[in-house]
Amino acid sequence: MSSRLLGYRGQAAKLLQRFNLSVGDYITIKSDLSHTGVLMPRYHYSDDAHIILKLDNGYNVGISIQNVDTITRHDVMVSPENDVPPPQADAGLPNILLLSTGGTIASRVDYRTGAVTPTLDAADLSQSVPELYGMANIHPQEILSEYSENITPEHWLKIATHIHNTGSRYDGIVVAHGTDTMHYTSTFLSFALAGFPVPIILTGSQRSSDRASSDATLNLIGAVLAISHSIQRGVYIAMHSGTSDDTVSIHAGTRVRKNHTSSRSAFRTIGGEPLYMIKEGRLHGQPRHDYYHDISYTPRINQVRDASLIKYHPGFDVSILENLIGSSCRAVIFEGTGLGHVGREAYDVIKKMRQNRMFVGMTSQCIDGRVGMNVYESGRDLLQMGVVPLHDMLSEVALVKMMWVLGNELSWDVMSRPMASEMAV
Amino acid sequence: MSSRLLGYRGQAAKLLQRFNLSVGDYITIKSDLSHTGVLMPRYHYSDDAHIILKLDNGYNVGISIQNVDTITRHDVMVSPENDVPPPQADAGLPNILLLSTGGTIASRVDYRTGAVTPTLDAADLSQSVPELYGMANIHPQEILSEYSENITPEHWLKIATHIHNTGSRYDGIVVAHGTDTMHYTSTFLSFALAGFPVPIILTGSQRSSDRASSDATLNLIGAVLAISHSIQRGVYIAMHSGTSDDTVSIHAGTRVRKNHTSSRSAFRTIGGEPLYMIKEGRLHGQPRHDYYHDISYTPRINQVRDASLIKYHPGFDVSILENLIGSSCRAVIFEGTGLGHVGREAYDVIKKMRQNRMFVGMTSQCIDGRVGMNVYESGRDLLQMGVVPLHDMLSEVALVKMMWVLGNELSWDVMSRPMASEMAV
Repeated sequence: MSSRLLGYRGQAAKLLQRFNLSVGDYITIKSDLSHTGVLMPRYHYSDDAHIILKLDNGYNVGISIQNVDTITRHDVMVSPENDVPPPQADAGLPNILLLSTGGTIASRVDYRTGAVTPTLDAADLSQSVPELYGMANIHPQEILSEYSENITPEHWLKIATHIHNTGSRYDGIVVAHGTDTMHYTSTFLSFALAGFPVPIILTGSQRSSDRASSDATLNLIGAVLAISHSIQRGVYIAMHSGTSDDTVSIHAGTRVRKNHTSSRSAFRTIGGEPLYMIKEGRLHGQPRHDYYHDISYTPRINQVRDASLIKYHPGFDVSILENLIGSSCRAVIFEGTGLGHVGREAYDVIKKMRQNRMFVGMTSQCIDGRVGMNVYESGRDLLQMGVVPLHDMLSEVALVKMMWVLGNELSWDVMSRPMASEMAV
Repeated sequence: MSSRLLGYRGQAAKLLQRFNLSVGDYITIKSDLSHTGVLMPRYHYSDDAHIILKLDNGYNVGISIQNVDTITRHDVMVSPENDVPPPQADAGLPNILLLSTGGTIASRVDYRTGAVTPTLDAADLSQSVPELYGMANIHPQEILSEYSENITPEHWLKIATHIHNTGSRYDGIVVAHGTDTMHYTSTFLSFALAGFPVPIILTGSQRSSDRASSDATLNLIGAVLAISHSIQRGVYIAMHSGTSDDTVSIHAGTRVRKNHTSSRSAFRTIGGEPLYMIKEGRLHGQPRHDYYHDISYTPRINQVRDASLIKYHPGFDVSILENLIGSSCRAVIFEGTGLGHVGREAYDVIKKMRQNRMFVGMTSQCIDGRVGMNVYESGRDLLQMGVVPLHDMLSEVALVKMMWVLGNELSWDVMSRPMASEMAV
């Protein structure tokens, strides 16, 4: 397979070679119908019976090679975005701030290397989904360009500060974000901007927007639709749901995790159903409670890194905890076993951590269900040492809340009190 | 509520007080019918309209207090096990070794304190489930009495050595085990006893056997039935499944995790269905492959603790890794984000770990799906540093496999090769 024909093999590669074509060429294919667009790369698991074109309207189409008559290459590569009309403010539509932070949703496959790289800013992103223009006035701004594995707590501050400063002028905010750590960011925003007056919806995609199977368009439309249908204030994650291509789940930002490495429906609300669903363009669901525990907007946009998330396992090396004592670390969130246990081997170091006034909180590596430290001897022993059971908070959520509690110099008691739907109480 | 009436409240408590009864009393209740048994404790979420008795046949029954005529207390507490006939070897039935290691399945509620404590040995366990006698000749042995949060890698060796020495005389082995770390133990046995000639089934319970909602009997019967129905050799976990009370899932011991803190159907096969199901006393399912990759029995019963499982998160404290360099730790298994990423902030320390000849393996905190480190820049960077992608191995399984690889001085390549169904290839 030629590197010009990225991912194409067998019959499809032969056909493209015959017409001397490369991925990225702007071409017209004539078969039963005629299609014009950019020749897209394919992937290693693709069949060899189809060619993928990105049409001028921004959609990808798979064309069977069976009845192809001719293929013509056009000399000028026309960017599909050129045909999209610029956004025009419509007084009858909601105004939505679209913040881009990077991630797959703002990425394309590089036609030469096959790698996915971030190339789209927020304006590209909104223009690449022309459907948005009938739904809302989109105001795009790019504040970061990072894949989410590289998003740090300092980036959380930047996003939160930006929303705090400018976000309340809009009817809602959509944050385009990488999926890997999207749920950590949604958690930080939930606490840092507790009570923020308009909804904040993070969205992303599991497959880049120029792939035929991309969920970028669906997710972005889902997030915008949710705001234009006036969902309650809160911090949400809007992502593809189930196996059909028309449903987006709107998850509480503190009750959700990425549960699959690659599936488009990777995000799951833990211990319940998503708060809302977008299905066939309509919003379903109506939460019984406000997302925030307190009514007023109380921004507390600080965090420190002085907390660690530690997963316990048989054979756990307690020196990891010993070394944290006396370091900058002031709090450990355990992912314990079962109802919130660690083995006896860790008791001595936990006592030492407590003597050094470290906060020790307990969540469960089971993920679903709540910790219950009164049932077994181990749980009671740990309670007696001052280990704090963190109800059914997800471990990732407990960690981010802890960083936020320490950064804002709040009382440890806050860890046990619901603030932003983080406990399913 | 009196502490003598553990968990009873409202109308039920009043009735018991009227007859001056305590939990643990051996009583006869006369209403429409007459029931004799031990008065059992109730739990905080119970209604106040029923009294629970453990009958002489070992079963619990809930009796409505509505039509109670009289309650008589008998002076002598009669242990229900006294009425169970001793096991008799039946030449037509399979011989099953029942190893007890502790855990909730071998526990009872202490009538005085309300705590769950391990009190049953393997003989008690088999005698408390009289249904087993028609299914198999049960040979009970107690080798440990630990809740599974206290099970260590050294205990794994003890269990594996015992099975290696005596297990092949039987048609199968059932290991009663605490649920918290049951999947770590099943993983170790899968590698240490690779190719063992008869099936090894771990089982336990999420609720102690004297609670009305206990799954102990169902799970134990499920494990025994699976062996008496001649399932293939392999290491399995047999636990309650779904919401009905008649189904037990038989999971591959290297593809399963405890996904709920308290639900009876907490165990889930990740990335697929359980290999077998026991439903209405019948075995369903037939795996397409042998559990083990190699046919011959190759015991390698060693492990060392020199491996750690590290969950990456935004704001991760790289000093945790720095401190592992030069310690006894020789391998780190990451629970990375998404397709197998960690942030750029950790690159320097990973390079240093590699220079110090540490093994660095990558799994995903998403749990489901496989790592894919060729898709994004971050994955490629990590591959270049020598980080080893561990396919779709569960992080807990990768950790235990690593401890076993190091303990048996095997080549690191073994980490990437399927041995005991740990990769869904």
